[in-house]
Amino acid sequence: MQRLKTAKNRKYGDSATDHLKNFCVCSQHFKRVQPCAQCFTHRTEQTLLNMTTTDEELYPRKILEYMEGFLVSKTLFTACELGVFELLNESRMSASQLAQALNTSEDGTERLLSACVGLELLTAHTNPDGAVLYSNTEMSSMFLTKSSPKSLYHSIEYSSRTIYLCWHYLADAVRDGKNQYEKAFGINSKDLFEALYRSDEEMVKFMQLMNSIWNICGRDVVTAFNLSPFKCICDLGGCSGALAKQCVLAYPESTVTIFDLPKVVKTSRQHFVSDQDKGISFCEGDFFKDALPQADLYILARILHDWTDQRSVELLVKIYQSCRPGGGVLLVESLLHEDNSGPLTAQLYSLNMLVQTEGRERKGSDYRRLLTAAGFTHVQIHTTGKIYDTILACK
Amino acid sequence: MQRLKTAKNRKYGDSATDHLKNFCVCSQHFKRVQPCAQCFTHRTEQTLLNMTTTDEELYPRKILEYMEGFLVSKTLFTACELGVFELLNESRMSASQLAQALNTSEDGTERLLSACVGLELLTAHTNPDGAVLYSNTEMSSMFLTKSSPKSLYHSIEYSSRTIYLCWHYLADAVRDGKNQYEKAFGINSKDLFEALYRSDEEMVKFMQLMNSIWNICGRDVVTAFNLSPFKCICDLGGCSGALAKQCVLAYPESTVTIFDLPKVVKTSRQHFVSDQDKGISFCEGDFFKDALPQADLYILARILHDWTDQRSVELLVKIYQSCRPGGGVLLVESLLHEDNSGPLTAQLYSLNMLVQTEGRERKGSDYRRLLTAAGFTHVQIHTTGKIYDTILACK
Repeated sequence: MQRLKTAKNRKYGDSATDHLKNFCVCSQHFKRVQPCAQCFTHRTEQTLLNMTTTDEELYPRKILEYMEGFLVSKTLFTACELGVFELLNESRMSASQLAQALNTSEDGTERLLSACVGLELLTAHTNPDGAVLYSNTEMSSMFLTKSSPKSLYHSIEYSSRTIYLCWHYLADAVRDGKNQYEKAFGINSKDLFEALYRSDEEMVKFMQLMNSIWNICGRDVVTAFNLSPFKCICDLGGCSGALAKQCVLAYPESTVTIFDLPKVVKTSRQHFVSDQDKGISFCEGDFFKDALPQADLYILARILHDWTDQRSVELLVKIYQSCRPGGGVLLVESLLHEDNSGPLTAQLYSLNMLVQTEGRERKGSDYRRLLTAAGFTHVQIHTTGKIYDTILACK
Repeated sequence: MQRLKTAKNRKYGDSATDHLKNFCVCSQHFKRVQPCAQCFTHRTEQTLLNMTTTDEELYPRKILEYMEGFLVSKTLFTACELGVFELLNESRMSASQLAQALNTSEDGTERLLSACVGLELLTAHTNPDGAVLYSNTEMSSMFLTKSSPKSLYHSIEYSSRTIYLCWHYLADAVRDGKNQYEKAFGINSKDLFEALYRSDEEMVKFMQLMNSIWNICGRDVVTAFNLSPFKCICDLGGCSGALAKQCVLAYPESTVTIFDLPKVVKTSRQHFVSDQDKGISFCEGDFFKDALPQADLYILARILHDWTDQRSVELLVKIYQSCRPGGGVLLVESLLHEDNSGPLTAQLYSLNMLVQTEGRERKGSDYRRLLTAAGFTHVQIHTTGKIYDTILACK
């Protein structure tokens, strides 16, 4: 984060005498090695001597940064939701022009833009007449505008509106050991996907979320293993079809059937997958209740993390029974290290699964155990270094 | 943040041929320079060649980190609120022991502890029998336990319960250009401090918040300038007296009068300041409506940022009139850079002022203008490199 660099720059030397001899303690002028004339420092010697202990002991920068985490998230989310990056994708604008175009207050808009500059999501340009114009960074144009093929817009919208509120009840989730839909949205979550898909609007938002993350991770997960031997692929809970599209792109000789609930399939056909997406077809059903289509390879991308071990094995057994001999199953999940020490993203996601689902994130060895219990063999684990990793197992 | 280090370690080299010749692309084994036997990599050459473009263009780690900011905050907040650091301050414990002591679910507790390890707030120790015990880091013991003199517990509690919910309405605040107490808590905020102090419980929480931040920043702000010439100091809106205590500690020959609303003074006397705090006295009043006590120095610590320019000048004029000749005023605020480019903390706090108050964070030159308009001269600005900076001006 940008602040880390600052913290490093600002870090005082190890020896108090360094400060007394050479350094101006004023942080604004920390690059000067001689006391600077601009800095009106009257620190007592005692204060300087205190700095022999490490900076972090006196001032917990890391904790303060964690405390600001939600401010950073909401600044990004709000700029995205209000359409700041969308507008600035067309041309540079002043805070006042943006406020007028977005129908927002000029003062509030100016503060939001300024914080986005601090986060390196926008660049500020000062004209010779002193007027400040803002522009997108390349990263913002690529990932934060709605229309970009790599857009994270819908992930951000879902994080901001749904996940942010769920996490307000994290303490309750840890206490009760279960999700907090009831508290956050007044919704009974006995049937998880009834809760998630509580309205057509919520369902489309959820599907857009799923769609959005495969914009940046999809290619990695379908190419982590060579899937070309599998000609007939079934994406269970394939949702909006984003991963199916990545599959047929990487393996043009394969076809993918998206298996999902009837209302999801209907929405996917309406909004996400068109006749031009060659090699992709649909099959309606509930993978816990209905028969699965025969296939060479079944993909379960972010499916098992929604469910308990017991339900996961139940589903894997069904898959094993439908799978053609020599076929397999590909799991796409965020894997925890074997010693539970990280990655932080997977640790946080596992808490997210607690707050929102019946499942959890797992280690590679946990998935190996579930797969083996269902009869699969030759379990291969591939971590991508990004959010989602892959596991391939054979029948 | 821990993740930055990870990102750096994981960063692929600049040249695709490096990967093809030397590297295993599997992130779990990225330290090996030869393809490793553990890693079942079947990436196509094309995937590797794509990595000639910079990592960030393909995968926006920074944005993903910002998106997780609120997960990080709430993980810290929840561990703090549930009393994890308090318990682990006494002895190492397993997840199961902690869950029993805290009356929380074992599964939820284990996930929370694991994420705290990822955030380097806890350390995990694996016993020879495989059992995992958790302990506080030094930083957690010092800053996250309730009883520590440097505790941030109450800042965290207020951030988690009040500020987190207010920020859910940041988009509305930017749209309307005003605070969102009404939406967040159903409270009319026409009188700002009536809203903030809406119950005795809320008032004590707010005062504990004020108290808590001066545990780590108080000494710096009172010693940034040599205040020893000012024998009679008045801390306007001095609240819980934490800064007054820092003042009499640094300047034992000075006395400090805490001026605040009658109910704040009453609570401060009950909970925060005792007869043993020598040199500290109280004066009850509303600084906009009532006469101010005469003094050599007036401290306004995090006061002007609550108010508009107009109300700020109004208050500064009153102070100027009460101030003894040769006396002055000390402002303690989080200063924005003159070109608005940072610091990020002040930019975020300025948005927080929008969401919660009538004011904003300002630049040094803004405060200079307000002080000069009220008659003050010799304005000296001192940035501390931490959250709060100081400005001294003379009558």
